[in-house]
Amino acid sequence: MTYPLAVEPFQEDYSGHLSWSNIGNFTLRVASLHAETHGFGISYMMEHQRGWVLSRLAIDLKERPRSLQHYSISTWVSRIFRQFTERNFEFRNAQGENIGYGISTWALIDYNTRQPVNLESLPDGGFHEALLDEVPPIASYSRVRVKEPAMVLHHHCGMTDLDINGHVNSIRYIDWVLDALPMEWHNTHAVKRIEAAFGLEGYGGDDLDILVEDAGENRYAAEIKRCKDGATLVKVMLFFD
Amino acid sequence: MTYPLAVEPFQEDYSGHLSWSNIGNFTLRVASLHAETHGFGISYMMEHQRGWVLSRLAIDLKERPRSLQHYSISTWVSRIFRQFTERNFEFRNAQGENIGYGISTWALIDYNTRQPVNLESLPDGGFHEALLDEVPPIASYSRVRVKEPAMVLHHHCGMTDLDINGHVNSIRYIDWVLDALPMEWHNTHAVKRIEAAFGLEGYGGDDLDILVEDAGENRYAAEIKRCKDGATLVKVMLFFD
Repeated sequence: MTYPLAVEPFQEDYSGHLSWSNIGNFTLRVASLHAETHGFGISYMMEHQRGWVLSRLAIDLKERPRSLQHYSISTWVSRIFRQFTERNFEFRNAQGENIGYGISTWALIDYNTRQPVNLESLPDGGFHEALLDEVPPIASYSRVRVKEPAMVLHHHCGMTDLDINGHVNSIRYIDWVLDALPMEWHNTHAVKRIEAAFGLEGYGGDDLDILVEDAGENRYAAEIKRCKDGATLVKVMLFFD
Repeated sequence: MTYPLAVEPFQEDYSGHLSWSNIGNFTLRVASLHAETHGFGISYMMEHQRGWVLSRLAIDLKERPRSLQHYSISTWVSRIFRQFTERNFEFRNAQGENIGYGISTWALIDYNTRQPVNLESLPDGGFHEALLDEVPPIASYSRVRVKEPAMVLHHHCGMTDLDINGHVNSIRYIDWVLDALPMEWHNTHAVKRIEAAFGLEGYGGDDLDILVEDAGENRYAAEIKRCKDGATLVKVMLFFD
């Protein structure tokens, strides 16, 4: 399914392109809308006390649309395995030309047991009838290791960092990694691909350290740790030109 | 002019209502779209090296829409005086009932001289033909003074805090005031009105202190200062139940 969009005022970053923050959140929104049309969206989740949890995400863009430009995000599910689904995205510009792809991995969590739901047990076999056996032609997820971070940003999580589930919004972690890089770097580089692997949830009041390391080959690796116990919440990899 | 909207996935805060952050940014977006239809939007600004600068904003809401609910924002300009315009907003729920109002004050800045433009000198007398002599029935801006702040949040401004002009997005300051209040407070209170008075611009790399004080009568007063010189960037007042 394809969702037509346009870059509206206040959705750009300072480079004049649709911000990574909005790209990330619109990607999640499109996933949510698509799940809803297949009966596994917010209405089903509210009724059954379940929720989709994002485990991994990679977005790989050759270009980002600019102010007022139209673009689209298409999404489909290519695979269901154990308690996970793989959901893909394709981004197109106003001319309908491909400008990039995304891949993501999700689990369905039962809020009462806090355990993942067996996706085979969903009514009508879950997404099975909607499966499209096609995978974007981009690299799979990287392995992220941070040993000697050169940059550290501290962040105190507040109310506005939280989404409707009371957890820190997944895309905020990506924002903080971008914010750990100095403006001088952003002035002279363009991020082309962002990957995130989500572990423990962050909550309001949490103090976090965002640790960023040059991983070579035009990549930054980042780890986001909870200060009080050093637990890793999220790992991120940025690829840039 | 009235802009129909709906609360889409990932636009809510943890209370399940459209977040103040999105309310603020949609209010600015509607202002921008309305200015565009009158010939003084982003196209005119890009061509003439000018930009609207928000000086003051107050948004006063009896209720906020919830997930998937429709709502609308109407906007009109009621006054042009010296180098300022007063732009108003009305918010309505899915049933078309009033749920609140907004007021705002803007100046048009020439990027070359850094000075405000005389709004009378615009082609066709500027917004004069679009003026609607009607003012929302809400209180005007408050005077905000912070003497002995009880809560302090520190924030390092990063790339994702900036808008297309390279300044910190106006609504981010409001987010930080909300984030300076602990989750325990948010769990038991609802913000009903937010006001902000914008002074100096914030930039990427700035370190800021968000200073918040109980102003009595169910109000918090806040001041956002630049650490390096103590300059005040923004003053904010929150009203709550």
